[in-house]
Amino acid sequence: MKMYPEIPLERLISFVEEDAPFGDITSEYVVPPQTCTAVITARQDLVLAGLAEVVRLCEWYGLIIGKKSTDGAEHKKGEEIIRMTGSAHTILLLERTLLNILGRMSGIASRTRYLQQLVETENPRARICATRKTAPGLRLLDKKAALIGGADPHRFSLSDAVLIKDNHRVLVQPDEAVKRARAGSMYHTIEAEADTAEEALMIAQAGADIILLDNMSPGMVIETRALLSANGLREKVLIEVSGGITEETLNQYACLNIDRISLGLLTHSVRNADLSLDIRKQD
Amino acid sequence: MKMYPEIPLERLISFVEEDAPFGDITSEYVVPPQTCTAVITARQDLVLAGLAEVVRLCEWYGLIIGKKSTDGAEHKKGEEIIRMTGSAHTILLLERTLLNILGRMSGIASRTRYLQQLVETENPRARICATRKTAPGLRLLDKKAALIGGADPHRFSLSDAVLIKDNHRVLVQPDEAVKRARAGSMYHTIEAEADTAEEALMIAQAGADIILLDNMSPGMVIETRALLSANGLREKVLIEVSGGITEETLNQYACLNIDRISLGLLTHSVRNADLSLDIRKQD
Amino acid sequence: MKMYPEIPLERLISFVEEDAPFGDITSEYVVPPQTCTAVITARQDLVLAGLAEVVRLCEWYGLIIGKKSTDGAEHKKGEEIIRMTGSAHTILLLERTLLNILGRMSGIASRTRYLQQLVETENPRARICATRKTAPGLRLLDKKAALIGGADPHRFSLSDAVLIKDNHRVLVQPDEAVKRARAGSMYHTIEAEADTAEEALMIAQAGADIILLDNMSPGMVIETRALLSANGLREKVLIEVSGGITEETLNQYACLNIDRISLGLLTHSVRNADLSLDIRKQD
Amino acid sequence: MKMYPEIPLERLISFVEEDAPFGDITSEYVVPPQTCTAVITARQDLVLAGLAEVVRLCEWYGLIIGKKSTDGAEHKKGEEIIRMTGSAHTILLLERTLLNILGRMSGIASRTRYLQQLVETENPRARICATRKTAPGLRLLDKKAALIGGADPHRFSLSDAVLIKDNHRVLVQPDEAVKRARAGSMYHTIEAEADTAEEALMIAQAGADIILLDNMSPGMVIETRALLSANGLREKVLIEVSGGITEETLNQYACLNIDRISLGLLTHSVRNADLSLDIRKQD
Amino acid sequence: MKMYPEIPLERLISFVEEDAPFGDITSEYVVPPQTCTAVITARQDLVLAGLAEVVRLCEWYGLIIGKKSTDGAEHKKGEEIIRMTGSAHTILLLERTLLNILGRMSGIASRTRYLQQLVETENPRARICATRKTAPGLRLLDKKAALIGGADPHRFSLSDAVLIKDNHRVLVQPDEAVKRARAGSMYHTIEAEADTAEEALMIAQAGADIILLDNMSPGMVIETRALLSANGLREKVLIEVSGGITEETLNQYACLNIDRISLGLLTHSVRNADLSLDIRKQD
Amino acid sequence: MKMYPEIPLERLISFVEEDAPFGDITSEYVVPPQTCTAVITARQDLVLAGLAEVVRLCEWYGLIIGKKSTDGAEHKKGEEIIRMTGSAHTILLLERTLLNILGRMSGIASRTRYLQQLVETENPRARICATRKTAPGLRLLDKKAALIGGADPHRFSLSDAVLIKDNHRVLVQPDEAVKRARAGSMYHTIEAEADTAEEALMIAQAGADIILLDNMSPGMVIETRALLSANGLREKVLIEVSGGITEETLNQYACLNIDRISLGLLTHSVRNADLSLDIRKQD
Repeated sequence: MKMYPEIPLERLISFVEEDAPFGDITSEYVVPPQTCTAVITARQDLVLAGLAEVVRLCEWYGLIIGKKSTDGAEHKKGEEIIRMTGSAHTILLLERTLLNILGRMSGIASRTRYLQQLVETENPRARICATRKTAPGLRLLDKKAALIGGADPHRFSLSDAVLIKDNHRVLVQPDEAVKRARAGSMYHTIEAEADTAEEALMIAQAGADIILLDNMSPGMVIETRALLSANGLREKVLIEVSGGITEETLNQYACLNIDRISLGLLTHSVRNADLSLDIRKQD
Repeated sequence: MKMYPEIPLERLISFVEEDAPFGDITSEYVVPPQTCTAVITARQDLVLAGLAEVVRLCEWYGLIIGKKSTDGAEHKKGEEIIRMTGSAHTILLLERTLLNILGRMSGIASRTRYLQQLVETENPRARICATRKTAPGLRLLDKKAALIGGADPHRFSLSDAVLIKDNHRVLVQPDEAVKRARAGSMYHTIEAEADTAEEALMIAQAGADIILLDNMSPGMVIETRALLSANGLREKVLIEVSGGITEETLNQYACLNIDRISLGLLTHSVRNADLSLDIRKQD
Repeated sequence: MKMYPEIPLERLISFVEEDAPFGDITSEYVVPPQTCTAVITARQDLVLAGLAEVVRLCEWYGLIIGKKSTDGAEHKKGEEIIRMTGSAHTILLLERTLLNILGRMSGIASRTRYLQQLVETENPRARICATRKTAPGLRLLDKKAALIGGADPHRFSLSDAVLIKDNHRVLVQPDEAVKRARAGSMYHTIEAEADTAEEALMIAQAGADIILLDNMSPGMVIETRALLSANGLREKVLIEVSGGITEETLNQYACLNIDRISLGLLTHSVRNADLSLDIRKQD
Repeated sequence: MKMYPEIPLERLISFVEEDAPFGDITSEYVVPPQTCTAVITARQDLVLAGLAEVVRLCEWYGLIIGKKSTDGAEHKKGEEIIRMTGSAHTILLLERTLLNILGRMSGIASRTRYLQQLVETENPRARICATRKTAPGLRLLDKKAALIGGADPHRFSLSDAVLIKDNHRVLVQPDEAVKRARAGSMYHTIEAEADTAEEALMIAQAGADIILLDNMSPGMVIETRALLSANGLREKVLIEVSGGITEETLNQYACLNIDRISLGLLTHSVRNADLSLDIRKQD
Repeated sequence: MKMYPEIPLERLISFVEEDAPFGDITSEYVVPPQTCTAVITARQDLVLAGLAEVVRLCEWYGLIIGKKSTDGAEHKKGEEIIRMTGSAHTILLLERTLLNILGRMSGIASRTRYLQQLVETENPRARICATRKTAPGLRLLDKKAALIGGADPHRFSLSDAVLIKDNHRVLVQPDEAVKRARAGSMYHTIEAEADTAEEALMIAQAGADIILLDNMSPGMVIETRALLSANGLREKVLIEVSGGITEETLNQYACLNIDRISLGLLTHSVRNADLSLDIRKQD
Repeated sequence: MKMYPEIPLERLISFVEEDAPFGDITSEYVVPPQTCTAVITARQDLVLAGLAEVVRLCEWYGLIIGKKSTDGAEHKKGEEIIRMTGSAHTILLLERTLLNILGRMSGIASRTRYLQQLVETENPRARICATRKTAPGLRLLDKKAALIGGADPHRFSLSDAVLIKDNHRVLVQPDEAVKRARAGSMYHTIEAEADTAEEALMIAQAGADIILLDNMSPGMVIETRALLSANGLREKVLIEVSGGITEETLNQYACLNIDRISLGLLTHSVRNADLSLDIRKQD
């Protein structure tokens, strides 16, 4: 069993309050107070993510959790995910929020695991990573889902690693930038983008921890790696490739003896997993 | 020019703060203070959404906005969206957040408009609608993007319209539910889901404003409409169809003389539009 | 038993924190730690509202709730409302906040029920409604209290129904406004204000769901209704009357075969119900 | 010109956001973008309060303030209070919130000044005070309005003065309580409630700054004051009377050579002042 | 056992969230899920403060509290403060925050008690007080720690007592200022700073409750007190001395028959108490 | 000129609101509205920090900033730091908050720079670092002040670097822990604590980026470095020393060819710098 970061409870509650600023008028007008049980079911094959958040919310709102699965588990279409019992009004209030959390997070986790497995088949040492191209305000949820799927989370934010990209290089030379970053702090990794093999060499010589090969063709990646090796630097740096890599082109990169493949699509083009919540009337 | 709801500024600022809880260490270490200009460009054809939010954020953080487009405008790949001038550190701090907002919102708006136009070609009176299957915490952003794309926003939350669905019907008879809702308030519309033509009739007779035909085949929709007409009720109710309708099956429903087609995919399966921000060094 | 919307716990807690930004110095200096029981008693006849909020707060702060009444119950002067046991310091910290919540909400509920009953005696189908003239920041509390008293809540906010009033009509023709609103969304009711019988007719013909007759004399209301009937539109629209209607003039409108009477005074001129909290020393 | 505390801007903004969680659908659908001017007018005689808050909100939302009055000014029915120019959508978004703020605060200020003047006529040294019986969450607004009306604000919260009341006295002897409070801090005044003249004497001897005579008849107040004088303590303490004093009985207390009369009704039974906002179409 | 104000739970939680915006990556990657026990130990002699906050946080995050000490208790180096059992990940997440709270608050309490005892030895009636020179955002924590140490808390904020200082006196005569404050409210004490004995007399005659002798030498304090006595005012006012008084000079003031000595250093120059948290593996 | 992270404005405003929950009663009662100028002056030699925050707050509250210094500048006692003009009430409201921010941050920056210079004299490559022993809730302020003083900021939080300490090693072998962390993410540095030279070797062999030598004597540090060198690992890892190092013992470590010396005292034992704000009456 692995551990993942926790989403603060007040964020989770805010998702419910967003969906009912003045209450759930349908249940209030229509449903008599009663206890019932509800079951959330997978309506497609999926890697489960978001369950910890669902449990947290249900418990906060007073529901009793019955049998439940685990984040990271793989489910087949039709399998039961979690069962809860309590006030019908509470279940109806939470229904859409629970499904939206599970749907987005499981959607991310499912695709991530699928692609990670594709990559591992080619290259057991390679790993895909998430990016900062997450939904605004959902950085932690999206990164957690990618973690559950098996990706390297990459930087969480602008505060936790140095990454020198094109826009920085308009303003400062990349090797100079790496040196300044090195002088800045010893506790944060330094990565810099290279557009050519020569730039990659220059950056490695300046002391970067990671070289980002952005928008390079597989051929150029091979050439760059060769130049680094020829200069005895391949073992001193890690290599990340990125830039419009899709499911189709993934394996052309995976097989190249690189370390990481970062994929914006993991979080910027999410297809929610399909799940449903069904209420069963108490006898 | 149309008007759309405003996202509260503190939400927008929170997106930036999420991306830099302890500052942007790359710029701080690497980039000397200087003024520069940046341009956001479409990297694909798109319907623009999120620009009001981008302008708001840029101005709050002290950037000067230059030439800019309008929310709802259609752009070709390569066209310039907005130009801003100010501190390089500020632009680098905002870059990813601005693109994430524009990317998600324009992604939603672009697909919405495309599908709405498909539908209108079949049936000028029909309209697609968004659902509550939005990213958690992003209800207003997602609904606004769908509005910009041309959809009917549907309910914003559980507080603004009554919708009696399967889970309510486990707990109360649908016609009884409609009557209770009618007694609850006069100021909120009442919609109820029907699984069969007979149920649709019963609900219409109970006084619902809108009948939701969920997961019905086109043939069943025709049959239901016929039964309502035969009972003189077609003009008294509006008809919404929903349930797993995809881009492929959309036109089979659009042509059926219904009023609304609600599509969860507009917001639960978003592919961000592709945009980039490029810094130009001040001479 | 009816259901009502819940006030978010953090709002309730903020009421307590507002009353003690740096603690309760009286209890801290003066009262030795001890357990005691307190009883809240009605000091006038009242319809109880706010009890769910009181229970929520007491439980959050660790008090044990004993015998208690129900929101919506009618109490005579001197009757006990709720009994709680726990730390004397906690009870003293909460005392004023609990009474302020119960006092305002029961004040609103009591007057609402009284007026609703007056109206029903005249016209069993008519109902009074609350307005948006609530205390700033207390929209949900005030609406909930009015609901408990038996009113129709009317719009909760600007987001949940269309209401075209005088200030809109300065800027757009009312019938044109109704048509635009109709094109905007199918899921929100459309109401428009009419100053004359002719305007009411025009608005009804444009497709409004509800006609608001604002500041009309009873005679004008009768005339307007007649004109609508003559045009076969009375059954297609609902009629709300409003505008400075007081307890004294209420019945002149109630008897007119209208649907709703909206009363700003329910929430803009509140007389708190009188309740007291008494501590009993533990033996 | 006097100064009053400022309400934090984020509180004021929250009042607007409460009224439009998903935008103002009426204006969005119905009103074409345009600039206009609006005027707020008194519809009754009033003492103005809440204007600083209105100005703050209007400026935050980008409106230009024209001619305006001052908090504390007395207005006759029909007089103009403030004039603002800007986006019609913004004015319509703010309208109800602005009126709710002005209405409540001016309602409190108007009644406060009226009662304070009644008291001063009887006894120029006496002054009425507000209590903590304010609307939950609106402590500062309500106290500020009472200040503008001319009342002594009394304690703002449980943190800024010691007040030993009935419920404390169940748990500790009042003279002992005063001594403990005296030992607690030198920087907060100490007031204690007395039910009899003898208790008042005991409390004064224990060193209280203020004696609260709660629910005493005018005769008992006279007797208490006499006993304090006889013991040379009248000049050492201040006297507050309270407890169900109404407009009718106010003068029976005002004339008694007491210092303060605290009136819960100033804030727990507010009748909003009547004001209106009218939009004028730009030519 | 004494009572102290409570720090709102959401503040305490925010301290934890500040330390882990995206989780605790060390534990997540490295530590297998397991239950363990941890003990917090004093690594120096100290007066304990912050324990209530530690207990509150631990319980909120699901830890079970074992044996524990009390706020205000004196501990020798090596003594155990509190013991907790639960998820190893939770304990590691909280570790630094718990120690930072205990360290700062116990640091303040320890020094406060030490200095208060110094003063009492000289003058049993004198007492030291905290000031508003606290860490920004930590007013309540710092004041509470000083209270636990035995200081008079002094004003908590600008809202709870009047203090007329040099900067006010540039703008208004001190005696006039005292009179205006007296007219402002009866429920807040009035203190004014005096630079000379004559000013002190003038302020006392104007009716101040407390005279602040700021930056006076011991000789000038004696002279001032004498002048007040000669005018029969010593018993009518309290005397606070302040201004750069250090541990070394404290007793020169303590012996002077003054009432309070305010010391900015209690909170503006804090040396955290040294404590450690040690995890013990469950067998 | 260097760049530093920005403290979010709403945090800064919250510091002011904490100091005036119900306004500044002294100014309100005592000071007539007027414009004035105020000057903040150093009352000791200091390295300035917190000025950006002061400017931000002053501008937000409407003051005009005149001549001002820069964060990081060194000032002698008596030098002017910043000058501001505007409402006297606003300046008085902000005074204490501004000084508390400047005092704490400049206190940290001043000591940091002093110690960093001590270290550099011994060893130009060595650098001191801040720790997570900051005041609760002030992580970013404290780290920013240390950055301005010239320290390496070290980890900002538990989310941005892996640090395996004693408490982790109770639960998992250190070399195994390093390997797991390496498998966790490529984008965060990995540091592990060693108690002996052998442990240091084991950790270096496992692939840590940084070795933390905690509570080692200078002699043990030398021995450890030698063992690492003998195994060809000195150049592959960075060395941090920590553990109760004081101003007195600092140079014994600085001269040892280590990379970083982390000092809890920079932020856990802060002596605020002394500054004053003086108002000058406008003529």
